[in-house]
Amino acid sequence: MRILSGMRSTGKLHLGNYITLEKWKELQDSGHECYYFVADWHALTSHKEDVSQFEFWTMDIVKTYVSCGLDPEISVLFVQSAIKEHSELFLLLSNLVSVSRLQRMPTYKEQRSEMSGRDLSSAGFMMYPLLQSADVLMYRANGVPIGEDQLYHIELTREIARRFNSMYGEVFPEPEPILSKFPKLPGTDGRKMSKSYNNFVLIDNNAEYLWKKLAPMMTDPARKRRNDPGDPEKCPVWDYHKAFTQNKEELEWVVEGCTQALIGCLECKKLLFENLVKKLKPVWEKMRELDNYEESLMKIVSEGNSKAKAFAESTMKLVRNAMSMRW
Amino acid sequence: MRILSGMRSTGKLHLGNYITLEKWKELQDSGHECYYFVADWHALTSHKEDVSQFEFWTMDIVKTYVSCGLDPEISVLFVQSAIKEHSELFLLLSNLVSVSRLQRMPTYKEQRSEMSGRDLSSAGFMMYPLLQSADVLMYRANGVPIGEDQLYHIELTREIARRFNSMYGEVFPEPEPILSKFPKLPGTDGRKMSKSYNNFVLIDNNAEYLWKKLAPMMTDPARKRRNDPGDPEKCPVWDYHKAFTQNKEELEWVVEGCTQALIGCLECKKLLFENLVKKLKPVWEKMRELDNYEESLMKIVSEGNSKAKAFAESTMKLVRNAMSMRW
Repeated sequence: MRILSGMRSTGKLHLGNYITLEKWKELQDSGHECYYFVADWHALTSHKEDVSQFEFWTMDIVKTYVSCGLDPEISVLFVQSAIKEHSELFLLLSNLVSVSRLQRMPTYKEQRSEMSGRDLSSAGFMMYPLLQSADVLMYRANGVPIGEDQLYHIELTREIARRFNSMYGEVFPEPEPILSKFPKLPGTDGRKMSKSYNNFVLIDNNAEYLWKKLAPMMTDPARKRRNDPGDPEKCPVWDYHKAFTQNKEELEWVVEGCTQALIGCLECKKLLFENLVKKLKPVWEKMRELDNYEESLMKIVSEGNSKAKAFAESTMKLVRNAMSMRW
Repeated sequence: MRILSGMRSTGKLHLGNYITLEKWKELQDSGHECYYFVADWHALTSHKEDVSQFEFWTMDIVKTYVSCGLDPEISVLFVQSAIKEHSELFLLLSNLVSVSRLQRMPTYKEQRSEMSGRDLSSAGFMMYPLLQSADVLMYRANGVPIGEDQLYHIELTREIARRFNSMYGEVFPEPEPILSKFPKLPGTDGRKMSKSYNNFVLIDNNAEYLWKKLAPMMTDPARKRRNDPGDPEKCPVWDYHKAFTQNKEELEWVVEGCTQALIGCLECKKLLFENLVKKLKPVWEKMRELDNYEESLMKIVSEGNSKAKAFAESTMKLVRNAMSMRW
């Protein structure tokens, strides 16, 4: 199966992204042909004022991809804005989707109210699900790993693929969503994870930073004293355990300890901390290693870009041919 | 001054276009640096079903450009879809204009009601004034020859240029409109010239075709008999005379003859016919010549495309640099 997915270059990656990267690695390791990219043109649709940091963030994200186990020898890791073909396909496909279809996307209104500090009135922002469709169709991807909130976007992509194929001839497969088994990780305060709340935990840094973020994490508000029993379902720390603690006995220890008031919240967080350090230590090490070899990171990106470009060109040949466009 | 303008590849060119081409030639001959293109990506926004004919129409339009005196040694004649940079700039600029600004364009509603047989609900159609802005800004044009109905589009382009310059740094000059001195040529039946009314006169063909189109032209409906005096201002033939008859005495002869019932409408049309034949004969000859040398037409297009691409690349370097985009 050919897989495509990307993350926006609007900042350093956090533990929510880490879960996604684990999924991406799993797909890579089970032998799929994977295209993973940094979506800097997407970042622009909501963060047009922040361009000066895009390049740093882009390289940092590639570094994080590699450090989390995406192997540039196996998967194609690339930067969207380096593959100009995405903009050409975006333009061509813009004729196959109606304005009202894009304005009715449930994510459109949602995100406009969520990112209320940003100017999201632009045509570019309204069109970003179409740009996503162009990204996916460019690699004629069969599968796209996503969260539930992105299901609408895959549906749009499938619609556009069908419309193109029926109007101009069969070029695009209809991609299937590959749903993540985890719901979205909440922020450390239990609210939705968001930059404006500053309630996220970055992948990068070190044990000290991690503990500083985990120690004050919100827990079940009903558990005010050590002797009060708690309800894990009301505790964001438990969401983190479900995502990062693999050992069943440890998970049982947490549930029992919490519901029967056998352990304190700090003990519970310490276990989470230890398990996270186990996971992230090799990631941190790899990141520091890559810090010292900026050139090798650049080499990874240029090689990935070349591979992506070759594939994108082959798709555009099919597209232009189907549309009888000579150039 | 650097000039940019283009025509859409939705069919063969007509006498209304001829007037525009005269203006384009005038600009070329007065020493301006002119970029004239065939807007096939624009054609797609309203004629996505007709792609199979685009290439024929595109080449036919270039042939007409050259035959009407646009000199590929002096002006850059190119095809939009060959210069992929237009799509990249289009995508980048889409973040600098709001959806409501595009939906409020007076031309948007107008054209949707005019081309009622077409599906114009697409995002691509709504975005086409932005694609025009990208076309103009790509060549950092100072002047754009247009009809009055396009003034709104130049205003949008100026707005986007200002927004880009203030957000990312000075890259684009604000283009000025170069207004045509003639109002739009009406159709042969006095209505607005339109394909759906079949009331246009093509540039191409020959004297026989031309007379067949001019002879039955509508005239002042009040002039029913030879002896009835007519009012030129109510007669589309007079609009054609104003555009194509240069000789002052001839124009006076028409006005006097009509208002005093000294000449019949057919005589008046014959003069128009003769003057048009004088203008178009060399155009027809050049067109037939180029029919026999398809290769030289292809050469003209590829050379024009190369020149346009070089300029477009230089602009995109400035744009990406201003936006701190590495690739």
